[in-house]
Amino acid sequence: MSHTIQNKSKLLARVRRLKGQVEAIENALLAEKPCDEVLNLTASVRGALSGLTAELMEDHIRCHIVAPELDEAERQQGANELIDVIRSYLK
Amino acid sequence: MSHTIQNKSKLLARVRRLKGQVEAIENALLAEKPCDEVLNLTASVRGALSGLTAELMEDHIRCHIVAPELDEAERQQGANELIDVIRSYLK
Amino acid sequence: MSHTIQNKSKLLARVRRLKGQVEAIENALLAEKPCDEVLNLTASVRGALSGLTAELMEDHIRCHIVAPELDEAERQQGANELIDVIRSYLK
Amino acid sequence: MSHTIQNKSKLLARVRRLKGQVEAIENALLAEKPCDEVLNLTASVRGALSGLTAELMEDHIRCHIVAPELDEAERQQGANELIDVIRSYLK
Repeated sequence: MSHTIQNKSKLLARVRRLKGQVEAIENALLAEKPCDEVLNLTASVRGALSGLTAELMEDHIRCHIVAPELDEAERQQGANELIDVIRSYLK
Repeated sequence: MSHTIQNKSKLLARVRRLKGQVEAIENALLAEKPCDEVLNLTASVRGALSGLTAELMEDHIRCHIVAPELDEAERQQGANELIDVIRSYLK
Repeated sequence: MSHTIQNKSKLLARVRRLKGQVEAIENALLAEKPCDEVLNLTASVRGALSGLTAELMEDHIRCHIVAPELDEAERQQGANELIDVIRSYLK
Repeated sequence: MSHTIQNKSKLLARVRRLKGQVEAIENALLAEKPCDEVLNLTASVRGALSGLTAELMEDHIRCHIVAPELDEAERQQGANELIDVIRSYLK
C-alpha cells in the first residue's frame, strides 16, 4: 500500500494547514494588510511546503524504493519517479 | 498606496490559483492517487509560489524602495523588509 | 564500487568547472567589476551547483539504493544518507 | 563607490572560503571518499553560497537602491539589476 494512503490522515492534516496558510495570504490581501505582512506570509508557506515535500520524498524512498517486498522493476520505477521530482526541484 | 492594494485583484487571482493547486494535492490524497502524482502536484505548487514571491518582491522594490515620492526613512524601511524576506529565503 | 569512483573523471570535470565559476567571482571582485556582474556570477554558480547535486543524488539512488546486488541493510543505509541530504536542502 | 569595492576584502575572504569548500569536494572525489561525504560537502557549499548571495543582495539594496545620494535613474537601474537576480533565483 502506498505511503500516501498509509499516512493519509497525517498528510491531509499537513496539506490543510498549508491551505490555511495560503488562505491567510488571501485574507491579508482582502484586508489590505501591509505588503511586508503578505511577503512574510508567503515565505512561511514556502517553509511549510518544503516540510511537506521532504516528508513525501522520505516516505516515497522508504515505501517505493527500499521496502524489502519490492521487486527490481518496482524499485526502478520508484527511483525514476523520485529522480524526476529532484530534478524539478534542483533545475 | 501599497502595491498589494494597487494590484489586489491580480494578486488575489494568483493566490486563488495557488490555493487551487494545494486543493489538488488534498483531492489526490483523498482519492488515494499514486504517490508520484502527489509529489508532482507538490512540486508544481512550489513553482507557483516562487512566481508569486518574485512578483511580490518586484512590486515591493518598485513601490516601497524606489518610488520617487518616498522619503529616506520610508525607503530604508522598505529595504529592511525586503532584506528580511531575502534572508528567510536564502538561509 | 561507488558511483563517485565509477564517474570520477566526469564528476571531477564538473567540480572543476564549478571551481572556475567561483574563481570568476573572485576575479570580478579583484578587478572591481560592477556589483551586478558579481551578483550574476554568483547566481550562475548556484545553477551549476544544483546540476552537480542533482547528478550526485541520481547516481546515489541508482548505485546505493536501487542496485540489485545490494542487501537490505545497504539499501537502508543508502536511503538514510539521501534523506539526510534532502532534509538539508528542503529545511 | 560600489559595495563590492567597499567590502572587497570581506567579500574576497568569503569567496575564498567558498572556493575552499568546492576544493574539498574535488579532494574527496580524488581520494575516493564515500559518496555521502561528497553529497554532504556539496550541500555545505550551497549553504555558503546562499550566505554570500544574501550578503551581496543586501549590500546591493543599501548601496545601489537606497543610498540617499543616488538619483532616480541610478535607483531604477539598481532595482532592475536586483529584480533580474531575484527572478533567476525564484524561477
